[in-house]
Amino acid sequence: MKNLIHKYKEFFDTCLDSYELPNQPSNLYDPIRYILTLGGKRMRPILSLMAAEVFGKDFKEAKYAALSVELFHNFSLIHDDIMDKAPLRRGKETVHIKWNENVGILSGDQLLVEVYKCLANYEGAQLKSLLDVFNTTATQVCEGQQMDMDFETENTVSIQDYLKMIQYKTAVLLGCSLKMGAIIADASSEDAEQVYEFGLNLGTAFQLKDDYLDAFGDDEKFGKQVGGDIIANKKTYLLLRALEKANDAQKSSILSLFDESNEAKKVKEMLALYQELNIAEETTDQIEKYHQAAMLNLENLKVSDQAKLPLTELANYLLARTF
Amino acid sequence: MKNLIHKYKEFFDTCLDSYELPNQPSNLYDPIRYILTLGGKRMRPILSLMAAEVFGKDFKEAKYAALSVELFHNFSLIHDDIMDKAPLRRGKETVHIKWNENVGILSGDQLLVEVYKCLANYEGAQLKSLLDVFNTTATQVCEGQQMDMDFETENTVSIQDYLKMIQYKTAVLLGCSLKMGAIIADASSEDAEQVYEFGLNLGTAFQLKDDYLDAFGDDEKFGKQVGGDIIANKKTYLLLRALEKANDAQKSSILSLFDESNEAKKVKEMLALYQELNIAEETTDQIEKYHQAAMLNLENLKVSDQAKLPLTELANYLLARTF
Repeated sequence: MKNLIHKYKEFFDTCLDSYELPNQPSNLYDPIRYILTLGGKRMRPILSLMAAEVFGKDFKEAKYAALSVELFHNFSLIHDDIMDKAPLRRGKETVHIKWNENVGILSGDQLLVEVYKCLANYEGAQLKSLLDVFNTTATQVCEGQQMDMDFETENTVSIQDYLKMIQYKTAVLLGCSLKMGAIIADASSEDAEQVYEFGLNLGTAFQLKDDYLDAFGDDEKFGKQVGGDIIANKKTYLLLRALEKANDAQKSSILSLFDESNEAKKVKEMLALYQELNIAEETTDQIEKYHQAAMLNLENLKVSDQAKLPLTELANYLLARTF
Repeated sequence: MKNLIHKYKEFFDTCLDSYELPNQPSNLYDPIRYILTLGGKRMRPILSLMAAEVFGKDFKEAKYAALSVELFHNFSLIHDDIMDKAPLRRGKETVHIKWNENVGILSGDQLLVEVYKCLANYEGAQLKSLLDVFNTTATQVCEGQQMDMDFETENTVSIQDYLKMIQYKTAVLLGCSLKMGAIIADASSEDAEQVYEFGLNLGTAFQLKDDYLDAFGDDEKFGKQVGGDIIANKKTYLLLRALEKANDAQKSSILSLFDESNEAKKVKEMLALYQELNIAEETTDQIEKYHQAAMLNLENLKVSDQAKLPLTELANYLLARTF
């Protein structure tokens, strides 16, 4: 897998390193430089580059699309970290902590403008198509973030709304990244749509796996405390499905665990309830459903199996993780 | 004057009234609807519509450019009000007070995306030109806001930096509004540039007049307390020029007035220092300089005097105000 994405990652790192920003006002541009050097998997730009190549174009043509999705992702991180009052990002201080909230708001705004400057490197019908998919996606990401914040104070959240939230907040940008690569490669609109849906399904499966691993993951490999979501009373797929299936007695057990201050006891008893309600299997079934849907999207692409191989392997790699 | 802008204002109000936004999530879209109904002169969209007509196009063709500049202006108001901790906007609660800061950040972000959705209604080379001028302007507006915030804690600010700040924070968007109308009317690039410069010079004169009127305006007509900037120790053109011209004794008088708690005394004594230093006349000279430059830009336009009359009258109207 490492070999498969290496050339894209290496190319993109060079693009990002040579991405020019003014020096002044330093309080506007230093935070942007800072967050871009915190690293990350660069999954979204890799998807754009990969998709361009899948559809027969030199992947370097997708450079500005790749930059735009990575810059947008980082814009959303800066603003989300303010809203979530998060002190750390990738183990380093978040922008609003290292500087202040005003700097976080404004440098985030400027980063969003930079996204559109990248897109403006394309022309004609391609530019319009890129703007259309990106604008739709950006709106969904904002809506997803708002839904996520709204859910915190809502008593009941349906599984349907939860799935919509994780799709909007995360998965649509994966679909968008891929579709942009397809547009740049002049793929047919059917292929562009299939590869978008592939990203959407893959992203949904990935987020559900995130929920799953928090409760059922391998403690050591996961790198963070298993049960963190349970301790935080976070409305995950697992919790929402458990509340949906629970009988009255189970439901009141779950609700009373929300106030349990002994964290080890809380995690242990919630996991026992999840086991009673068969939540682990239900969740893996859901993950598998989205994974299969993603694979079907790949099958439907009108390109050779050889050409689509990187996407197939990427999907298997992303969903095979057990930590 | 009212007649001159009436048809544009009326048309634009209809555009804004019929501008559709989703209902959900309500915490994302209600704040956008709210700020857009707080009113305002709608000067920027009127400039876009007017410019399209000056260059021979049906002004209604500039509808989406007009919407984009008004939406961008309102985006900047929401975020600036958070940064400035402003409780009121047009006599009503600001978004972050009526809702909260998170809602202000995110609905502002969504409003910025709406700007680009409006622009994406244009096509081809026109779309690219519109994006280029808008992106440049949006960046300058962010830089201007950052400079403004930086100036608050800086000991010395040069007149040159101050002029750059007010141009970036305010005047460039007037130039951009006009240039967008010109682009939509397929004006020559020379004409588009001249009308941009007209807006920039007009906006600069207007902002300087704002500084002037705060100290020397007609109390009753001005509608707010004369001397508000003096009381707040705000670094205006007047104060910065006074500090530049002052001898050591005058300079220490100015600096000691910063700590004066008797507001009436503070305003009276600062005005006396301004008079000693001839600040009123210097400022009106500057305003006149930018006004004349704007008029020269209009003269240079390759359209009939009749066609450019609305812009001439608008400039005279905006700068004739004594309150």
